Amino acid sequence: MDNRKHIEVCFTPGEYEYFKDEYEIVVVIDVLRATSAICAAFHNGIKSIIPVSTIEEAQEYKDKGYLVGAERKGQIVEGFDFGNSPYSYMNDELKDKEVVLTTTNGTKALNIAKGAETVVVGSLNNLDALCEWLVEQNKNTLCLCSGWQDKFNLEDTICAGAISEYLLSTGQFTSDEDSSIAAKYLYLSAWDRYMGFLKASSHRRRLKNLNLNEDIKYCLTPNQTNVIPILKDGKLVKL
Amino acid sequence: MDNRKHIEVCFTPGEYEYFKDEYEIVVVIDVLRATSAICAAFHNGIKSIIPVSTIEEAQEYKDKGYLVGAERKGQIVEGFDFGNSPYSYMNDELKDKEVVLTTTNGTKALNIAKGAETVVVGSLNNLDALCEWLVEQNKNTLCLCSGWQDKFNLEDTICAGAISEYLLSTGQFTSDEDSSIAAKYLYLSAWDRYMGFLKASSHRRRLKNLNLNEDIKYCLTPNQTNVIPILKDGKLVKL
Repeated sequence: MDNRKHIEVCFTPGEYEYFKDEYEIVVVIDVLRATSAICAAFHNGIKSIIPVSTIEEAQEYKDKGYLVGAERKGQIVEGFDFGNSPYSYMNDELKDKEVVLTTTNGTKALNIAKGAETVVVGSLNNLDALCEWLVEQNKNTLCLCSGWQDKFNLEDTICAGAISEYLLSTGQFTSDEDSSIAAKYLYLSAWDRYMGFLKASSHRRRLKNLNLNEDIKYCLTPNQTNVIPILKDGKLVKL
Repeated sequence: MDNRKHIEVCFTPGEYEYFKDEYEIVVVIDVLRATSAICAAFHNGIKSIIPVSTIEEAQEYKDKGYLVGAERKGQIVEGFDFGNSPYSYMNDELKDKEVVLTTTNGTKALNIAKGAETVVVGSLNNLDALCEWLVEQNKNTLCLCSGWQDKFNLEDTICAGAISEYLLSTGQFTSDEDSSIAAKYLYLSAWDRYMGFLKASSHRRRLKNLNLNEDIKYCLTPNQTNVIPILKDGKLVKL
């Protein structure tokens, strides 16, 4: 009998319903840029982040005096304090603060996954630290890609493929969903030249048009931090 | 200005709503086995196929005296005339007949797409004939993969990648969805050894367990026919 744990990949939030309930740990991934920014925020000493799905919820928190980040389609929503650029969170004024965040894709995925036993935040920035922790946990694990407006995207898939490959290489884990096989394959084919590969990514092109090249470089640079943000009682905190 | 037409790939029926209305032609793909069986049926002289989504609808047609195929989870549903094995349709008794078909994934995808201007059936079996016809049409084209129970599958994606690559190679078409880029990439990486690659496919393993190896070999053999089934007034007919 095969008693290895599963590491699988779900390409979009919309498909999560076909995966949920089988995984003790869900890793939410939004490489460009929500989960990269969240890792940067905790690396820089933020106390907690409350992820919300809608601009309306974000506005309610803002009215109560919270610091609130809001991003839609790659840009800061007018009237809010920041968007989802990692550089917005490298700010001493945010140390030990609680902030609220809503983004196009990433916070939506976090909210969809919140019923899972354990929800953590993954990005290329915290890749090795996260993978080591996942191996220690030895639980059935699902990488939930945030995608772009409910569609598949390449950068989240390649990050999920990198996590899968790390876990599979220990021999403790197995994969059998076709999405997991494809993610691992795209990662193995793309890693050495993934900046070039991601140039072909529609979302990367979209951000490039918004002059967000520095953000993109940051988000695509692995292992800049050891933090693992985890969802506790509706708030992200540092594990 | 780029006036090339788009060739894009949608991985699952559930994501179709984010793509529809932008494409004049939708190619429905269910390599294992519905669209392969449909191509085999028209190659063997069937007159028309009425695709229905549910067993209940299929039963209503059966009660009216129609020949009805019904497949769920790889097996013929009890009480029906056949399932979705291509070999079921290589039968002289079906020549010039109208039959009804419901399958786990493929007929569902056909029904989801039926609002499009033109809906045709794609498989590896009619690959080149279909691609040549699509190039002649020169319309915005979407490959809709049927997937497996609403999840991504490899064999439909690789078939969609093969169609994309053919159309892109003419210079008349362009792709910009990440799903299209991934499909093309998986196809280009997998084609020469796609039987081996598809051994890793969960659905192929599922069918192998049902002793359907002959079906799998048939479905994965390109260009066995020139037929292009097309949806007209709710029925599939030969173009």
